[in-house]
Amino acid sequence: MNDFTGIKALTFDVFGTTVDHRGTIIAEGSALGRTKHLTIDWAAFADVWRGGYKPAMQRVRSGELPWTTLDSLHRTMLGTLAARFGLSDLSGAELDDFNRVWHRLTPWPDSVEGLTRLKRKFIIAPLSNGNVALLTNMAKHAGLPWDCILGCDLARHYKPDPEVYQMACDVLDLAPAQIMMVAAHQDDLAAAQQMGFRTAFVTRPEEGPNGEPSTTPTGSWDIVARDFNELATAVGT
Amino acid sequence: MNDFTGIKALTFDVFGTTVDHRGTIIAEGSALGRTKHLTIDWAAFADVWRGGYKPAMQRVRSGELPWTTLDSLHRTMLGTLAARFGLSDLSGAELDDFNRVWHRLTPWPDSVEGLTRLKRKFIIAPLSNGNVALLTNMAKHAGLPWDCILGCDLARHYKPDPEVYQMACDVLDLAPAQIMMVAAHQDDLAAAQQMGFRTAFVTRPEEGPNGEPSTTPTGSWDIVARDFNELATAVGT
Repeated sequence: MNDFTGIKALTFDVFGTTVDHRGTIIAEGSALGRTKHLTIDWAAFADVWRGGYKPAMQRVRSGELPWTTLDSLHRTMLGTLAARFGLSDLSGAELDDFNRVWHRLTPWPDSVEGLTRLKRKFIIAPLSNGNVALLTNMAKHAGLPWDCILGCDLARHYKPDPEVYQMACDVLDLAPAQIMMVAAHQDDLAAAQQMGFRTAFVTRPEEGPNGEPSTTPTGSWDIVARDFNELATAVGT
Repeated sequence: MNDFTGIKALTFDVFGTTVDHRGTIIAEGSALGRTKHLTIDWAAFADVWRGGYKPAMQRVRSGELPWTTLDSLHRTMLGTLAARFGLSDLSGAELDDFNRVWHRLTPWPDSVEGLTRLKRKFIIAPLSNGNVALLTNMAKHAGLPWDCILGCDLARHYKPDPEVYQMACDVLDLAPAQIMMVAAHQDDLAAAQQMGFRTAFVTRPEEGPNGEPSTTPTGSWDIVARDFNELATAVGT
């Protein structure tokens, strides 16, 4: 169970696992609100924006929408939210810029240090429902030291569809058992495990009140760690 | 002509432009030869191996072969070369390992420093006929500080097919005019320019005697530079 010698790559969920999307949206929204003299409950705003994520992906998954990147899905949702939350005075260009808050998300305090340790021994890559452009810009902004960027646009599917995990195997030229999926979301880990990946559950209680991540393991994960430094120690780096 | 303000990303040819494949193959071959007591003209070997590259890609391009990664094409060529050059005593596993010399290529002396300077201002990525796994392993081995890895397996086409340059635009979510192609091979630059990319010709006279790169510009390139440091200065980083 604790033999990790065959593992060559660690692939990471990003939103919530590597970066704090909720906190960043609240912070950037609050700054925008001060500039524009808006009084908005940015925590509620962040939760509603993120809450639209799964239904929007489902519209792609079902074929109701053709392949659409997360950047585009976020922008469509933001247009709807702008009316609902009183952001209607913002121009299209201002909304475009605010939509790119997803490219500027702040890592959890342990993320860069933990990834830097893990990178010494393993290939490290995001395996995210974000698109490659979003993830590349985020990495430059946040100093995330990825070896390569795996966005789900390379598979034209969203996690937890098996095509995304298969894309990681194909692109990295590795067998599933040579890859460990790292996530704070257990549906992601369950889908990866189903494909034959190893799994590491990172418990992130801070992620927010919308209740998505639980810190109680619901599956048989190879590693349960509180953060990326604990993960690095667990795999011997 | 010298306004580079709209450029967001620089994409790099790798073999010959960023790394010295010929010198590395000669060095690793010579070391292997000493271990195995083989007397082989490794310069000739390197040139014949690389010489098989364009015909092999053409077999994919023509549809004679289905999509095949460069790793696989190199391995097939190596099997043929092993008989011709007296490497037949090597096991399949030893040939597999030697085939991965392409993952261990040595950068030109200016490459890491120049890329590090360019990375401060631009997204930097390989745009190579190598596959993502090869390029990722090479980057880890050589310390190439890419922001993301664009291998031609993401397009399932080989340069100079336009699909490869289009893939870079799609994946980076950039217009062609926002990307500058950097190469020592002018057919690569011509194809990129045809797609609307900006172009930088890096003259690498050291690349080898098989005569592929010329240091005399045959096209109207935005920049002509001797190495990546001169390129970084030309674009103001």
